[in-house]
Amino acid sequence: MSKIHFDKIALIGVGLIGSSLARVIKREGLAGSIVIATRSAETLKRAEELGLGDSYTTENAEAVRDADLVIVSVPVGSSGLVAQQIAGNLKDGAIVSDVGSTKASVIAQMQPELPPSVHFIPGHPLAGTEYSGPDAGFAELFTNRWCILTPLPDVDAAALAKLTAFWEACGSRVDQMDPQHHDLVLAIVSHLPHLIAYNIVGTASDLEQVTKSEVIKYSASGFRDFTRLASSDPTMWRDVCLNNRDAILEMLGRFSEDLASLQRSIRWGDGDALFELFTRTRAVRRGIIEAGQEVDAPDFGRQATISKGG
Amino acid sequence: MSKIHFDKIALIGVGLIGSSLARVIKREGLAGSIVIATRSAETLKRAEELGLGDSYTTENAEAVRDADLVIVSVPVGSSGLVAQQIAGNLKDGAIVSDVGSTKASVIAQMQPELPPSVHFIPGHPLAGTEYSGPDAGFAELFTNRWCILTPLPDVDAAALAKLTAFWEACGSRVDQMDPQHHDLVLAIVSHLPHLIAYNIVGTASDLEQVTKSEVIKYSASGFRDFTRLASSDPTMWRDVCLNNRDAILEMLGRFSEDLASLQRSIRWGDGDALFELFTRTRAVRRGIIEAGQEVDAPDFGRQATISKGG
Repeated sequence: MSKIHFDKIALIGVGLIGSSLARVIKREGLAGSIVIATRSAETLKRAEELGLGDSYTTENAEAVRDADLVIVSVPVGSSGLVAQQIAGNLKDGAIVSDVGSTKASVIAQMQPELPPSVHFIPGHPLAGTEYSGPDAGFAELFTNRWCILTPLPDVDAAALAKLTAFWEACGSRVDQMDPQHHDLVLAIVSHLPHLIAYNIVGTASDLEQVTKSEVIKYSASGFRDFTRLASSDPTMWRDVCLNNRDAILEMLGRFSEDLASLQRSIRWGDGDALFELFTRTRAVRRGIIEAGQEVDAPDFGRQATISKGG
Repeated sequence: MSKIHFDKIALIGVGLIGSSLARVIKREGLAGSIVIATRSAETLKRAEELGLGDSYTTENAEAVRDADLVIVSVPVGSSGLVAQQIAGNLKDGAIVSDVGSTKASVIAQMQPELPPSVHFIPGHPLAGTEYSGPDAGFAELFTNRWCILTPLPDVDAAALAKLTAFWEACGSRVDQMDPQHHDLVLAIVSHLPHLIAYNIVGTASDLEQVTKSEVIKYSASGFRDFTRLASSDPTMWRDVCLNNRDAILEMLGRFSEDLASLQRSIRWGDGDALFELFTRTRAVRRGIIEAGQEVDAPDFGRQATISKGG
């Protein structure tokens, strides 16, 4: 099987995802040349210092000229603007994709702007860390992680196959999904957890009877597990909230109902109901470990690392 | 400084904490002999197979005879019963302590049962993993972790110093706190996070539009961080809820208010409020890492581990 290869790949945005793409594309030799575009001159300079691409520009419209593959990696609220900027310069037959965490909104923003002569195939690599920016990326970010493509009904089969092969060459496992279903699945597996994490860290910071230094000092008893998600990129997450509103509100509603019921069990001392919930949830983690999506070392394997350090 | 040493230590309960204590006591040579007691004959047999102690019994009352230090490591709801069982056989001047996650309730249950001739000093090592039972323990569990002692006003200074030295010899850093303040601090850093984690995993399991296999498959995008806490021991956590009810309900109330406000910001598209919250919470994690309570490797250092496996 011949390896997937594009003459020219344009990466719009060079944060955690964009810069990781640049690194894996280079490592795997997936492009003749890589153009990197970002609107911040400072970030662009850093990308150049890191040697992430072959050419660099702050003009998105410039970057896409002659590109065979364009990947937009910006906060989802900026997708429409980027589509407007690049639309006029796209090469006929180019594949245009993105990495946004919400899909219906990205499609609504980008599709009307893009010419029919290009293949627009939205995508979302389920990969990330709590760090952001071009320095945070690494070539292995996508290894064994899922990438969900949400092709539109009239998608070109050859272009879809090519984009699929690209993500597989980056190390991903590729799935396809309806955009609406994607947004619902991600609302539960990603958006709700992030919001809950942000919320609990916010609640803890606000307490007056317990000091912030106590929260930090004793965080290992549970709290710190939430702080990883709660230190994710604020701009990205603001945009996710604003662009997957309905699914997120639905999940928050369900979560709150369940929490009210749990609260009631505690107030009325219903030990059986508590025991039942706490038992049921145990099985889910076992499933995640068995699916190879988690390490089974106790405490995320942190214990050893921290003890060593101390 | 001479090393702390007890002629005979009785461990009541041999789960994650009790069995880790047995291991570290043996490794550090802190006792002439270790008696292990647990009401389950099966668990006791396992403890014996693992060689955790010097003698074994299912009778708590038997275990404490002649012991200089007794450590009760059972779900907090059983503290009162254990105190009743051991009270008559305790040696004059023995130190009696525990490891329970709630302190006011444990004091209320145990203190009235215990004779004035012993030194009752409640304690709580902030150490644990999501695994339970005698096989889950390990000697390094307490290394560099906090142990909070909540001595009563009339505590004997020499006994307190001895118990402090014991925990330090186990690797812990020891703090003292008022029992009520302990319960409030733990409600926010430990009890609330666990309940929120149990709740979100419960909510996700109940969804009918998103299947459980999808939740598991795509869990790496955030959800799985919660599943570690949500796979903790159900009996222990049921008892924590029932025994620190007021502080937990107070924290759940605050969390719910904050969540309702976050929900409102999303519904009304208040991007500035979202951005402000998501920025504020970032600093907390930095504080935890700087305090040496967390590893700063991205994704808990999991990325590398899982990639290697796959």
